[in-house]
Amino acid sequence: MFESAEIGHKLKKSEYRREEPKLRQALLKAQYDLLDNGKFPVIILVNGVDGAGKGETVNLFNEWMDPRHIHTHAFGAMTDVEREQPEMWRFWRALPPKGHIGILFGSWYTDPILKRVMGHEKRAVFEHRLERIRHHERMLAAEGALILKLWFHLSKPAQKKRFKELLSSRKTAWRVGAGDWERWKHYDEFVDVCEDALRDTSTGEAPWQVIEGSDPQYRSLTAGRLLLDALTARLKGPPPKLSPSAPPPEPPIDRRNVLNSLDYTKSLTPKAYDKRLEKAQARLNQLTRDRKMQERSLVMVFEGMDAAGKGSTIRRMTRAMDARFYRVIPVAAPTDEERAQPYLWRFWRHIPGHGKAVIFDRSWYGRVLVERVEGFCSEADWMRAYHEINDFEEQLAEAGAIVAKFWMAVTPQEQLRRFKEREKIAYKRFKITDEDWRNRKKWPQYERAICDMIERTSTEVGPWKLVAGNDKLHARVTVIESLCDHIESVL
Amino acid sequence: MFESAEIGHKLKKSEYRREEPKLRQALLKAQYDLLDNGKFPVIILVNGVDGAGKGETVNLFNEWMDPRHIHTHAFGAMTDVEREQPEMWRFWRALPPKGHIGILFGSWYTDPILKRVMGHEKRAVFEHRLERIRHHERMLAAEGALILKLWFHLSKPAQKKRFKELLSSRKTAWRVGAGDWERWKHYDEFVDVCEDALRDTSTGEAPWQVIEGSDPQYRSLTAGRLLLDALTARLKGPPPKLSPSAPPPEPPIDRRNVLNSLDYTKSLTPKAYDKRLEKAQARLNQLTRDRKMQERSLVMVFEGMDAAGKGSTIRRMTRAMDARFYRVIPVAAPTDEERAQPYLWRFWRHIPGHGKAVIFDRSWYGRVLVERVEGFCSEADWMRAYHEINDFEEQLAEAGAIVAKFWMAVTPQEQLRRFKEREKIAYKRFKITDEDWRNRKKWPQYERAICDMIERTSTEVGPWKLVAGNDKLHARVTVIESLCDHIESVL
Repeated sequence: MFESAEIGHKLKKSEYRREEPKLRQALLKAQYDLLDNGKFPVIILVNGVDGAGKGETVNLFNEWMDPRHIHTHAFGAMTDVEREQPEMWRFWRALPPKGHIGILFGSWYTDPILKRVMGHEKRAVFEHRLERIRHHERMLAAEGALILKLWFHLSKPAQKKRFKELLSSRKTAWRVGAGDWERWKHYDEFVDVCEDALRDTSTGEAPWQVIEGSDPQYRSLTAGRLLLDALTARLKGPPPKLSPSAPPPEPPIDRRNVLNSLDYTKSLTPKAYDKRLEKAQARLNQLTRDRKMQERSLVMVFEGMDAAGKGSTIRRMTRAMDARFYRVIPVAAPTDEERAQPYLWRFWRHIPGHGKAVIFDRSWYGRVLVERVEGFCSEADWMRAYHEINDFEEQLAEAGAIVAKFWMAVTPQEQLRRFKEREKIAYKRFKITDEDWRNRKKWPQYERAICDMIERTSTEVGPWKLVAGNDKLHARVTVIESLCDHIESVL
Repeated sequence: MFESAEIGHKLKKSEYRREEPKLRQALLKAQYDLLDNGKFPVIILVNGVDGAGKGETVNLFNEWMDPRHIHTHAFGAMTDVEREQPEMWRFWRALPPKGHIGILFGSWYTDPILKRVMGHEKRAVFEHRLERIRHHERMLAAEGALILKLWFHLSKPAQKKRFKELLSSRKTAWRVGAGDWERWKHYDEFVDVCEDALRDTSTGEAPWQVIEGSDPQYRSLTAGRLLLDALTARLKGPPPKLSPSAPPPEPPIDRRNVLNSLDYTKSLTPKAYDKRLEKAQARLNQLTRDRKMQERSLVMVFEGMDAAGKGSTIRRMTRAMDARFYRVIPVAAPTDEERAQPYLWRFWRHIPGHGKAVIFDRSWYGRVLVERVEGFCSEADWMRAYHEINDFEEQLAEAGAIVAKFWMAVTPQEQLRRFKEREKIAYKRFKITDEDWRNRKKWPQYERAICDMIERTSTEVGPWKLVAGNDKLHARVTVIESLCDHIESVL
């Protein structure tokens, strides 16, 4: 992987002086075209060996282009807030919005590579983390991002020479620390691990570009041109969308599915309800105050057809919890800041820290429900979403989150009854809109989307609980009880 | 202050049962009216003595109303990120957007009161912090926020009784910790300090409401009604705006001012420029890498008429700094999330942590410049902004920020020359718009606004540096040199 970056690439200063002004003018123009276009972000990952010119290149990019539209993020040690979150959390927060350039200095590659070199993590863990990165980058690319992955390389003797050069001047000696020499001793292991990492993550949508770092002129011009070429090509039009591997399956011939095979006749008398509800709420209250919860978080998802009783169930549940413990996020139209990001971004921003709960009233599943049915996104987009969502929830679970997902199911007849009831009662009228009636007409399409969703996203870490909700009392108690069961099983 | 909250207020359960359903229905309706209205946020501060029902009330508010539109924030120990910021930073982040209700549990009052009770801070510091709070609340109120400050009180014997009650049941015993008894011993000092705090901060725009906490029925109904009354009254219309204390002064009769008395003839030859620029950049580079900078941050503001050279000066400056150190924030139209907040919110969100710099290309001064001149806000609004801005910058400085503000000045003749030049050069054409020409016609109004701004906001912690910018070379060097001087003087 690094062979061609150890052959001593060089460029004459005179050639650099001739080419640099043209390059920077073209880059600046491309940057403004990107800003005008406003349809995709550019994510530049800067990685490589120490002393190979990473910092210099980042500074140069900021100098060549308009630094006001470049977001440079350097990732060092995690803050205590970041440590409670999935590792990708801090990278999500650093994503540039559409139209902008984000430079991630020390990206999602740094930690897996270092941990592997130091022997802190086994090969299997390393490979799992690389796989996660591949998924992450594929998702970003599918969402439109242009990803440029730059790797700056130096051979072992070249790195030694570079450190000595830096040390020889008072102006630059501070840049070489004891840690650098320490890492230099591990050069061979480091490069071995990096080769593995690069090979495993050089994909069609986000290939690595290895740049030999010993000659500043060669390095700078190469990096600049790679950015310019990628940006220019992308501005001409997005790459063709990959079609999904397999079209979504037809519904089963006998029309039986997980929704219509639920038992909708279950019900509770008000008296039985009161008794069981009180018990379930007390149990939930205890569980949320469990010591172990201080190292955990709770992410709840409520989905269901209109008037299925999501809101009233959430309220019965929150009554069992301290208001300082939970936050309810009602998912409505995205804000403009959210629209400038991949669709999962607006959910990542609400992920709770340890000892906290977030209840999503509708969620990222909108992608495979309303967006699918209404055609707000392409088939390829919602088809890939199943995997992206599973990956997202897996990351939450790995960081200690308990993921609980509820589908509140009602029959079409019961929905109709509730719509009519809502129209009659003054203070409930705000809950029923024309859109609800329109959605209702698409019941079969929704049913199909729901069944696909449950089949493809009911995972070990994030199982779906389907609740027959024709009887509200039964539904509420069932949700709280099954939430308790789920929390207990995890704790 | 607390006398009338120690007389044993009580309410019969039967009366509570009769009143509670009416109250909650009215509250829910008022909450939806607020959401529909969407013009102001409701900020509820919940403070008081331990065991007086703070948590219960917060939970009740969440139960009575729709918890999806209530943002409850509990403030405990600061995170490491929060510790590097002005103390108000975390409260800014917790502000509810317009149309929503935010409950701040343990608000900006908690820390000053506890530090004073424990004797960790002197009376003068305590009073300074209360003054800051008054300013903060006055600003929030002037920005339209409805502020409800609830204080839950218990007499000393009542608090003891309450703790014993809680301890008597296994279900509630966990709520009384060793710290609670410890604090109970300091009850008298605590209440003394609280009385001072409440008296000093019970203002017309944000009065305290003291509620006796021993009887749950009385407490809950009182708190709910206070919220309902405040919300209902405010939904009928905003309180009349206070007119500014004094109208802005007329410009001086001789027409001499800080702008037209600058010496615009100063210039540099390209050779002298290169030499001084290199020296200044090296100096700036050293300063930003100074050890002391690790405990500091740097907040820079660039303001100036169109085409005054802000952008090109910022670029010369950033070249001297590592890209990981600084971030440039170009201030354009606010996003919809920003529009739902007080005008300073969108600047607070970019405040740098320690060891970092943020460069604002245009800034919060837009309030007293373009918003004043174009009439985007009322006279009362921009008049109060001077004080609010000074207060903001003072908070930054207290948290370790070095605040450096530059006014890039050009003469109208020079601006005209640059506009025409921009129109001629293809790649600069994007920099000149119809709006620039419109603004130019209002030069006298802008000049007046600028002079008022400089007079009222050039403070010890945030002095304005006026730079005569007709000669770009001279201006750039002057900015960097004077930035270095300023950083040196602070470090």
